[in-house]
Amino acid sequence: MQAVIDYLKQNEARFIQELCDYVRFPSVSAQPQHTADMKACAGWLVEHCKRIGLTAKLCPTAGHPIVLAKTPPVKSKTRRPHFLVYGHYDVQPPEPFNLWKTPPFEPRIAGRSLFARGASDNKGQNLAHLKAVEAYLKTSTELPCDLTFVIEGEEEVGSKSLASFLKAHRAELRCDAVVVSDTGMPSKKHPALTYALRGIAAFEIILHGPSRDLHSGIFGGSVDNPAMALAQLLAKLRDKNGRVAIPGFYDDVEKLSAYERKQFARLPYKESDYRKFLGVEKLFGEQGFTPLEQRSARPTLEINGLTSGYQGEGSKTIVPSWARVKITLRLVPDQSPAKVIKQVRQQLEKLCPPTVRMEIKSGHGAEPYIVSPTSVQAQAALRALKAAFGHEPVLMREGGSIPIVNDFKKILGADTLLLGLALPDDNAHSPNEKFDLDCFTKGQLMSAHLWQELSEVKP
Amino acid sequence: MQAVIDYLKQNEARFIQELCDYVRFPSVSAQPQHTADMKACAGWLVEHCKRIGLTAKLCPTAGHPIVLAKTPPVKSKTRRPHFLVYGHYDVQPPEPFNLWKTPPFEPRIAGRSLFARGASDNKGQNLAHLKAVEAYLKTSTELPCDLTFVIEGEEEVGSKSLASFLKAHRAELRCDAVVVSDTGMPSKKHPALTYALRGIAAFEIILHGPSRDLHSGIFGGSVDNPAMALAQLLAKLRDKNGRVAIPGFYDDVEKLSAYERKQFARLPYKESDYRKFLGVEKLFGEQGFTPLEQRSARPTLEINGLTSGYQGEGSKTIVPSWARVKITLRLVPDQSPAKVIKQVRQQLEKLCPPTVRMEIKSGHGAEPYIVSPTSVQAQAALRALKAAFGHEPVLMREGGSIPIVNDFKKILGADTLLLGLALPDDNAHSPNEKFDLDCFTKGQLMSAHLWQELSEVKP
Repeated sequence: MQAVIDYLKQNEARFIQELCDYVRFPSVSAQPQHTADMKACAGWLVEHCKRIGLTAKLCPTAGHPIVLAKTPPVKSKTRRPHFLVYGHYDVQPPEPFNLWKTPPFEPRIAGRSLFARGASDNKGQNLAHLKAVEAYLKTSTELPCDLTFVIEGEEEVGSKSLASFLKAHRAELRCDAVVVSDTGMPSKKHPALTYALRGIAAFEIILHGPSRDLHSGIFGGSVDNPAMALAQLLAKLRDKNGRVAIPGFYDDVEKLSAYERKQFARLPYKESDYRKFLGVEKLFGEQGFTPLEQRSARPTLEINGLTSGYQGEGSKTIVPSWARVKITLRLVPDQSPAKVIKQVRQQLEKLCPPTVRMEIKSGHGAEPYIVSPTSVQAQAALRALKAAFGHEPVLMREGGSIPIVNDFKKILGADTLLLGLALPDDNAHSPNEKFDLDCFTKGQLMSAHLWQELSEVKP
Repeated sequence: MQAVIDYLKQNEARFIQELCDYVRFPSVSAQPQHTADMKACAGWLVEHCKRIGLTAKLCPTAGHPIVLAKTPPVKSKTRRPHFLVYGHYDVQPPEPFNLWKTPPFEPRIAGRSLFARGASDNKGQNLAHLKAVEAYLKTSTELPCDLTFVIEGEEEVGSKSLASFLKAHRAELRCDAVVVSDTGMPSKKHPALTYALRGIAAFEIILHGPSRDLHSGIFGGSVDNPAMALAQLLAKLRDKNGRVAIPGFYDDVEKLSAYERKQFARLPYKESDYRKFLGVEKLFGEQGFTPLEQRSARPTLEINGLTSGYQGEGSKTIVPSWARVKITLRLVPDQSPAKVIKQVRQQLEKLCPPTVRMEIKSGHGAEPYIVSPTSVQAQAALRALKAAFGHEPVLMREGGSIPIVNDFKKILGADTLLLGLALPDDNAHSPNEKFDLDCFTKGQLMSAHLWQELSEVKP
């Protein structure tokens, strides 16, 4: 291992130059004008993988190609562990350009920050894993496991081709765990394993009232106002303790263990800073839980949009014909989107007054995700983080959803270890995105340690 | 009087031709391209008034000119009653043209209907009054009162110049009552005096939450959602009995008298027809009142518009930064917009949770209006209606506001008698507007009788 560590140290400057080369490609998956740039970036990546000693190829999909790379086969009498490393080479659109201090695809280094679109999300993070495996291969240090890299080009547009790719390559991709560095850590002193994600269930309610907008002077008072009916319906979906008021909603929610709550308590958090960051005078959430727990380990019902009647300047005196709300529920293990949507429908049908007609449209759903934080793989990952960063790592839940981890579980039968290298101020998806070069080098080190630690445990 | 009645009968065909001439002017006050048409229409009206024996002139304003016409001065030892007849020569925009069966400014007669923009609102109605006075003047029948006609050109755009015109001509316009035919009657068998109007108070509430839209996955559950806070706030403004839940709101509401409720009961109404007309399965309104009472004699709080967060297709997973509602309250005698807005503010401030910041914007207000239905003038008007239409007239309240009646009261000190000649299916403000020729001829007769009846009573 010392040779690997030394190699990483000695080649640090070149690695940074390679990351600069990588981020120069404007690989914006959402914008058709960048289709050729996408292809060029993927091609560069394949060549890069080959140069460091991997076998690599470009796999065409219905959308942008996927880069598939593997460590060279090793003859072994016993079954060798196999891990899959997932990343993506596509980036968010850089607009608005005028908010960037320097052009998004011209990397700029200032102190320990490398500024460029995609530096943190996700090129810097997936390149860190490639540099770790390069160190093994170039120093002829024996890797205790086989590694497969799947680096896709459609993460920022919904990973539309990934599931069918996983299905088509199910046999060769079957693995002991998937490793993804595409999440964050609270600070460089708090390297993190994200062990749970919230799921989601989206739906829309439209309450239909009169067949057209009515003059509120002439008719108002004698017919229900669908906007008021909607307000009264919505008001009943959250109680004063911040709980979702849908019967059965909490039935499948797994209780936070004492161990988990202890981990939450270790996360850096200061309420006044958090309030300031959000721009609110006072926080609000489910009673009995801390804000960090509320936003990641507890389910919630959020109104995403309201639409009814007149929205322009001044006033228009109408009883609107209809009112609409867009809602997403964030779910936690072991809630299921389908079951929750059924519970919501039942409650809405019970609450809806006979003076309006209700239409419910179900939208997308995603299961919540959890890997036991006390599993041997999770604990192995924590050891790798500690060895690389020199600080006791934290265990985190994230409040958002990453649908692909459910695909890995369903299609490949593997758990995913989320070992994110992004810092909270990396400006992912925003102008002036940057990646911290310490996270880059320590990420390489973490990856180098990870294969040792993971290969020693039996999941 | 018989000479007057005979004259009206004998000249019916010519009057209809004159109404056709009048509606041919595309006098659309809202559209700058019709400024010359407005002037031409007003000029035609002045000439017409002169031709029938009135003194008449065009009074320029900051906007469109006002036509001012008077009956010739009569020498009299005693003070003669003086009544003001108000009307307007401007019309609503005719768009969308494609929904008109024949062009809006090319009058078409079918059966007893004259189709044209402005036929019912308001040219046919104000011309009926002019034809009645023509009959008096051309038959040398003595008018028992002096009459002044004020026919403005900005009614459809808010009567912006009328108040200052009334103030500038306060002395010569001082009168015993104002007569306005610009409302409706339920049917030709139910000629109507509208004796009360609702007032209005408009306001807007904006609840401010986080300083920007937040990712609902990452932050949802730990910060209040302003759209939910708004729904819960609004839900508390109307109770389950359909009453406005603002302390003190009903304090100044005058109780409906037994006489008034009896009048309401005489109005033609069938619930199934009304439901069908509105397009709803079930009506809703304040308990203890009929729908006709609810929509005209009871105050109400109506949401006119809701806006928050994402309104496009599909979903956007955010906690919106703010949520807005537009509200109008319809007020009844003796509620005052200023007092009600104060009550609303107090209640909102009491209800608003500390987790959002509330901004309230007050909009326009208008006082409710009432003329005692048992006053001598109201009863005189009812006699004129009965004489002309041959049916027992009904007393009505209207749910909308007509702000100018408050100006007549404040500036001229006069009550307004609303003797509308429009039928419910006249399509005012809509394509294929029409005026019923029976309403035209009976309206002339009503006007002829009205001056006799009104001049005999002392207000």
